[in-house]
Amino acid sequence: MDEFALIRHFFATGGVSRGDVTLGIGDDAALLRVPPGHELAVSTDNLVADVHFPDSLDARAVGHRALAVNLSDLAAMGAQPAWALMSLTLPQPDEAWLAAFARGFLELAHAFEVALVGGNLARGPLNIAVTVHGFVPAGQALTRAGAETGDAIYVTGHPGDAAAGLRLIQSGGFDPSHPCVQRFGFPRPRIAAGLALRGLASAAIDVSDGLLADLGHLLETHALGARLDEAAVPLSPELLALYPRADALGLALGGGDDYELCFTLPPARQAEAAARFKALDCAMTRIGIVESAPGLRGVNADGVLHEYPPAGYRHF
Amino acid sequence: MDEFALIRHFFATGGVSRGDVTLGIGDDAALLRVPPGHELAVSTDNLVADVHFPDSLDARAVGHRALAVNLSDLAAMGAQPAWALMSLTLPQPDEAWLAAFARGFLELAHAFEVALVGGNLARGPLNIAVTVHGFVPAGQALTRAGAETGDAIYVTGHPGDAAAGLRLIQSGGFDPSHPCVQRFGFPRPRIAAGLALRGLASAAIDVSDGLLADLGHLLETHALGARLDEAAVPLSPELLALYPRADALGLALGGGDDYELCFTLPPARQAEAAARFKALDCAMTRIGIVESAPGLRGVNADGVLHEYPPAGYRHF
Repeated sequence: MDEFALIRHFFATGGVSRGDVTLGIGDDAALLRVPPGHELAVSTDNLVADVHFPDSLDARAVGHRALAVNLSDLAAMGAQPAWALMSLTLPQPDEAWLAAFARGFLELAHAFEVALVGGNLARGPLNIAVTVHGFVPAGQALTRAGAETGDAIYVTGHPGDAAAGLRLIQSGGFDPSHPCVQRFGFPRPRIAAGLALRGLASAAIDVSDGLLADLGHLLETHALGARLDEAAVPLSPELLALYPRADALGLALGGGDDYELCFTLPPARQAEAAARFKALDCAMTRIGIVESAPGLRGVNADGVLHEYPPAGYRHF
Repeated sequence: MDEFALIRHFFATGGVSRGDVTLGIGDDAALLRVPPGHELAVSTDNLVADVHFPDSLDARAVGHRALAVNLSDLAAMGAQPAWALMSLTLPQPDEAWLAAFARGFLELAHAFEVALVGGNLARGPLNIAVTVHGFVPAGQALTRAGAETGDAIYVTGHPGDAAAGLRLIQSGGFDPSHPCVQRFGFPRPRIAAGLALRGLASAAIDVSDGLLADLGHLLETHALGARLDEAAVPLSPELLALYPRADALGLALGGGDDYELCFTLPPARQAEAAARFKALDCAMTRIGIVESAPGLRGVNADGVLHEYPPAGYRHF
């Protein structure tokens, strides 16, 4: 099959149909309609083999992750996902790989009603670049900029599981159904949480580089700092079954790939946020407080305050 | 410099500001506003080193081409460009390369008032994926679907120059200022031509794979065919200085990378289109006619009708 036939075969069929797509894949560009009164939230991210995921990761997980890491950015803005485009570079036309990859991508697309409206397939080292689009009522987006001293810091879900899963995969001979392996391969973008936080969160970011690193990004706009209560950081039973508590905490604070949301809430809005989260299949846990002094600090289980070193994954 | 500093240094400064960008680069997603009554035209395309361009191509040309090949898709839809996002994968943080690349990209962005609203930089084999967004009044987009039997077939500019330029580059020891080399390295997206064709062209496509291949795409929706007058195909003096006429014609019909527009006009609209093009710095040339019999045929300089073989660049 040639390039066009491959794209059509694996992606143009079985995708999501949306009424706001006037013209989908197959022309020079897609034609799309944004609902009145809404802003368009747009983000792009790519996955490179052996950089963002081990080459041994199964193709269905690669397809899922390629879309999930992008939808996670929309979640952090409080946006409702709508459309995606993908530039896929593949070393050879491996139809089995492409079929599993497309399945992983499209399963997640269906779960969030995301239409694939543009694609491009080229030969070269494996690289998947995805651009996603979502809607947010004008002026209601969550951004990184609004945290203030005294706001409480929250995280969704259980950070650290994905980093533990990646270690299992890299060690070889792992159980692919292990919850941590699944959390690395199939992260769930926290779209519902992002929507629930509209009008409440003062700032939000998704955790891709690691909780400390991304919290740092959240606070840097106004040169604020934070104090974390390490005993409050939610560690999953699965993570604690793999590692001693101190190591598990290290993965939760420093490991990446969680795609949880980290956000801040002014004191007066915490009860309303907790009430909204009760309706969701997603925990939110208060882990610290925004302080005026720059830098990230932690209070350990013994009540000792300590400074964290600068963190974050650096590509170069 | 780390990833974020590199992005900020080369792209976040010196870019285009637009009033419809509520929030640009630097958060989890950009926030954008589409003007009322308009559809959004969106397209994505990527460039892979040694697949889409020779590794020896200068970085400024790579940056220009990465945006140009995408804007060309908007031109083919009759859309007005607005925003771009880029996922850039680089083997190492080569600051000189990145500076020249950014310059090529941003010069073209300025020329068409395109704001770079999202970016992502990762380590890996050189790969540049760009997504572009443009506006078109609802219902007025040009598509590939509307050609009818009896419509005239046109092409803008001088196809074949870019393919000749690529050959010069690949042969080594070329003059970088040669017009054909420039046409390969710095294609001008035919935005003004696309806008002028709104309400007139029955179908349009940009010529990336080659004139015959892309004309084939234009006609396949309704299984139509075409007859080309080979003597009418506009060959530039620069191309004819490099090659005998038959070889030059071969490059014009089969060579890719032109990023000219190929479009069809019903007989009653040809005079109006010619009048509108007079105001543009862009020639349009009638090269053939749409026929009901599928397949692409040519009439050569001796008046002999012949069938073209299936054409087009295949990545796999």
